[in-house]
Amino acid sequence: MNISVLGTGSVGQALATRLIGLGHTVYMGTRNVQDSLNKTQPDNWGNPAIGTWIRENTSVELLPFKEAVEKGTDLIVFAMNGHAAFQCLEAVGEQALQGKTMLDISNPLDFSKGFPPSLFVSNTESLGEQIQAKYPALKVVKSLNTMSNPIMVNPAILEGEHTVFVSGNDQEAKTQVTNLLKSFGWQERNIIDLGDITTARGTEMILPLWVRLYGKLQTPFFNFHVNMAKK
Amino acid sequence: MNISVLGTGSVGQALATRLIGLGHTVYMGTRNVQDSLNKTQPDNWGNPAIGTWIRENTSVELLPFKEAVEKGTDLIVFAMNGHAAFQCLEAVGEQALQGKTMLDISNPLDFSKGFPPSLFVSNTESLGEQIQAKYPALKVVKSLNTMSNPIMVNPAILEGEHTVFVSGNDQEAKTQVTNLLKSFGWQERNIIDLGDITTARGTEMILPLWVRLYGKLQTPFFNFHVNMAKK
Repeated sequence: MNISVLGTGSVGQALATRLIGLGHTVYMGTRNVQDSLNKTQPDNWGNPAIGTWIRENTSVELLPFKEAVEKGTDLIVFAMNGHAAFQCLEAVGEQALQGKTMLDISNPLDFSKGFPPSLFVSNTESLGEQIQAKYPALKVVKSLNTMSNPIMVNPAILEGEHTVFVSGNDQEAKTQVTNLLKSFGWQERNIIDLGDITTARGTEMILPLWVRLYGKLQTPFFNFHVNMAKK
Repeated sequence: MNISVLGTGSVGQALATRLIGLGHTVYMGTRNVQDSLNKTQPDNWGNPAIGTWIRENTSVELLPFKEAVEKGTDLIVFAMNGHAAFQCLEAVGEQALQGKTMLDISNPLDFSKGFPPSLFVSNTESLGEQIQAKYPALKVVKSLNTMSNPIMVNPAILEGEHTVFVSGNDQEAKTQVTNLLKSFGWQERNIIDLGDITTARGTEMILPLWVRLYGKLQTPFFNFHVNMAKK
């Protein structure tokens, strides 16, 4: 498939790397290509800056948001920081988003008051719903937002069962995303389709617990599993 | 132990039944004893009304909130509907709450706009924190609020691993609650102490996902497990 990955942080990098490995063509979207190329300082966790990463991943083409989406004809992977979500989508424009499936991994995390973050939208709405409402012709499928990026793209990194949730209004788009998840190694029994995009409230609202678990366990290598094995 | 169970719904009944079975003395608290005794209509799920239940569980003494807490000298189990939480605690009064450990199972679910419920406090605060802030001499320990009541009191009802979270400011009170959880059958490895009472935000905010899963799976017999088994 021709896939755009919007977002150049560790989530976007992890998704892009995995997609290339599976033989897809990846167009990575950024606000300003030259600014991204100039970034070479690793982040606090030692993840490479996009300027370094892109030079080591020469098969990925770094493009402005709009061009990335136009070339990635089959799927959008939305790996943006929640705060920058609408700025990015406005740069892409309604025309290019029309009819496309978007795997939305973003979370409305608000670090403005420090750690732990709160959510800048929650409870009676979600970022997934806001995006869907603003771009009705885009097929938003929220998924993978409840775990760290190494687990997203390689669930077998954890022993045993664990769950990925899928939320969205369009059944065909959800099937497309589910098939992609399976290609990452997700077992069908561990993919739970929660229902329409309003169910993204539930998965986005799990983030505050995720963040506290990360603080407690001191590792991002964990994931939620919905155990439904009644004796 | 002498334990008060505040709340006469299915959660309170399940806790009381389990506690009696373990040899504890249980004082069940209600707003108005006579009103409770008059209730004999089962709820929508077929759970017995408190008036019926109390006649079948003669070892449980049904008392006004304040008296139940005064007689239950060792522990309060708070199984109230979130909306009625402060009304109940005001009826008990600061004096009787002083120095007590309270296992808080309540959730701030708001069904006023129908299904699915939202939360009437969340994100930057939690019901657990509000209770702790209003009654500083009470030792609030939030736990068990992330699952259905049959699983709370009998975790072995599910095959395999699943998690219970504990949040609270007082370490001794958390140990007391943790020991109670173990007596219900919870394995130590599956009891996660998240930290202080602010971490109750995370566990209360998992409810919207729980509710959607309940709708999807059509059974309350499931629970979250934090899988941290990195290969």
